Amino acid sequence: LTIQVTADETSGAYAPPLGAGLLLQLLRDGRPRTRAELARAAGLARSTVSGRLDALLSAGLIAVGDEGVSTGGRPASRFAFNPSARVALAADLGATHATLAVTDLAGTSLATRTAQLDIADGPEPVLGWLIGAGRELLAECEQEETKLAGIGIGLPGPVEHSTGRPTNPPIMPGWDGFDVPGWVSAELDAPVLVDNDVNVMALGEHATAFPGDDHLVFVKVATGIGSGIISDGRLHRGAQGAAGDLGHVLAPHGGDVPCRCGNTGCLEAVASAAAIAAKLREEGLDVAGSMDVVALVRAGNMRAAQAVRQAGRDIGEVLAACVSLLNPSVIVMGGSLAEAGEMLLAGVREAVYRRSLPLATEHLRIVSSVTGAQAGVVGAATMVVHHALSPAVLDPQLT
Amino acid sequence: LTIQVTADETSGAYAPPLGAGLLLQLLRDGRPRTRAELARAAGLARSTVSGRLDALLSAGLIAVGDEGVSTGGRPASRFAFNPSARVALAADLGATHATLAVTDLAGTSLATRTAQLDIADGPEPVLGWLIGAGRELLAECEQEETKLAGIGIGLPGPVEHSTGRPTNPPIMPGWDGFDVPGWVSAELDAPVLVDNDVNVMALGEHATAFPGDDHLVFVKVATGIGSGIISDGRLHRGAQGAAGDLGHVLAPHGGDVPCRCGNTGCLEAVASAAAIAAKLREEGLDVAGSMDVVALVRAGNMRAAQAVRQAGRDIGEVLAACVSLLNPSVIVMGGSLAEAGEMLLAGVREAVYRRSLPLATEHLRIVSSVTGAQAGVVGAATMVVHHALSPAVLDPQLT
Repeated sequence: LTIQVTADETSGAYAPPLGAGLLLQLLRDGRPRTRAELARAAGLARSTVSGRLDALLSAGLIAVGDEGVSTGGRPASRFAFNPSARVALAADLGATHATLAVTDLAGTSLATRTAQLDIADGPEPVLGWLIGAGRELLAECEQEETKLAGIGIGLPGPVEHSTGRPTNPPIMPGWDGFDVPGWVSAELDAPVLVDNDVNVMALGEHATAFPGDDHLVFVKVATGIGSGIISDGRLHRGAQGAAGDLGHVLAPHGGDVPCRCGNTGCLEAVASAAAIAAKLREEGLDVAGSMDVVALVRAGNMRAAQAVRQAGRDIGEVLAACVSLLNPSVIVMGGSLAEAGEMLLAGVREAVYRRSLPLATEHLRIVSSVTGAQAGVVGAATMVVHHALSPAVLDPQLT
Repeated sequence: LTIQVTADETSGAYAPPLGAGLLLQLLRDGRPRTRAELARAAGLARSTVSGRLDALLSAGLIAVGDEGVSTGGRPASRFAFNPSARVALAADLGATHATLAVTDLAGTSLATRTAQLDIADGPEPVLGWLIGAGRELLAECEQEETKLAGIGIGLPGPVEHSTGRPTNPPIMPGWDGFDVPGWVSAELDAPVLVDNDVNVMALGEHATAFPGDDHLVFVKVATGIGSGIISDGRLHRGAQGAAGDLGHVLAPHGGDVPCRCGNTGCLEAVASAAAIAAKLREEGLDVAGSMDVVALVRAGNMRAAQAVRQAGRDIGEVLAACVSLLNPSVIVMGGSLAEAGEMLLAGVREAVYRRSLPLATEHLRIVSSVTGAQAGVVGAATMVVHHALSPAVLDPQLT
């Protein structure tokens, strides 16, 4: 037996390369620092730090801030991250609606737009809209196209991450294998990052609301059910990019309820907004989708409240397996049905705490999404920011 | 909302630092290379490469191999990894037995020993045995203690990875919070790496048998049931190091069978070797544990075969959730019950393929462990090798 090593397992991740990227990572917290402070924190010679800072200054990514107190002589310059150096175009494309935003490199939104838009129209009409509306938004907030650091896009189906192409997406006719990055960057000259919508939401929620939690599961409960898994601070995509498929796990009380996937008893078939709406219609209520369900719960309708709470229990029973397998520190409930608030959360918590070992739930929090309806667009901006400020982009060849 | 970035999500992991560690990673495949080849592969100046190679030569980690063909003048020297430069002491400590090995840096075993040993005797007697037997093994294969690159230890309970201390281990009285690395390294002066036994097995199986599979789930089926999860090539430990706890997930047909954890219907309560043995005893068969079950299956006993196959189905139903959530490319069945071979695998495959979406199982392999009974000790050696040859150890301060 010969051991082949692909990554360092026991002593943590590789140390980041000590270049401009590392200095920028240090400065991302917003606190201005002197050359001496940066050299100390990065473990670099001051002469090396000066060279890297010059490169970041000329790229506009940092600015010289207020003056520090020197130990004598003239005061030392302080350097700070400049989030307005570049902008991101972020798109959350759903089945029937789209949200678009221009943000700065801190993820702060400068302009947003929403539209009714059918993903089933195919890639060229939908992406054509994205480009047209994106240009209008850039103009609206007075940003040149040349300031674009990248374009982030979340799509409602599986995406091959390395190429940005959708793979057999069930509700996206015409999109299978379409070169989304190629098509978009032919129009807007910037890196294009594409991922599945729930992965994108997990990224955004993690980066904005739970940056300190390395193990997070984001659950989207809407017409369907899916999840995005953050493992050791990074998105877990799996071998074919199909990870996080919570909706087609067997629900312990799923019985023989048929699911659109061809199987029976799937979680999505019993606990999605579509399943709840169908159940309430059978009981004579006038319910089309998740918005109606949420409205009924908020209006105090007992049947709707019971149905949502039971859905929470069903989801919680599957999440209990997820807790045992992954030991996350936080589970975030998002998607349109999460707007039913405590009623859904209570069911989820009840089942997760009943079915999990004490060690795994001792410090576990189960909460509603902080980014809420903005989760998708926040996540799409996050993809761009992560990419634009990564050492791999800033230090492509450390010399 | 402000985006905080903790790791680069979209453009892959950080590039490794370009030092001695990187050169060694390149040389680990065993192929000798010239300075020019290494400089090209690493993207480094030849003068930098020469400096790094000198450091590795003086540490004995590489050797000058055969001569390469130069484009004129004298032939160029080739450098190759020298796995016999250092040795690892690897220990697999089970509930009632222990396996110890000395290996070189390629993981090749130089000497091994097994012993009956009760983990419940407490840390000092058990670790005292490890140190005594370890010294004898080193002497047996004529290796000085100063050549020890590290000591890897797998323990049958949860371990806090950062400190190497067991945390509330159910079958290890006296071990809770015990400073295993501190105690061992006071006797043998080398880095001590400690982890849960199933995590260690997953590491070893991944490194030796499936180095190309970045997403792997190793399942141990013995007296209990547990799993080790490799995510993106790295062990997924979770927020409290409790990840991979497959045994206490609700089995879809678990019903109200009581489990030692205090819950009912856990997978371990219906499909572990202990559960199968209890069931076969009820049917009048003389069965003490997994070895008896395996012997009966191998002897063609139909009741035992049926019981193992049904256990495989129960395990497969829980693994189907694992497949949907994690999308691994390989599931490895290990532990003593896996020695029942195809009977267990057939049940697992049947249930996994029935309950999973086509995209997630298209390229999925479900196989028996290649390292078999050696999985624990191979994994413990892997921990040491990964640590000793990691850039973090070889390039603690890249300058």
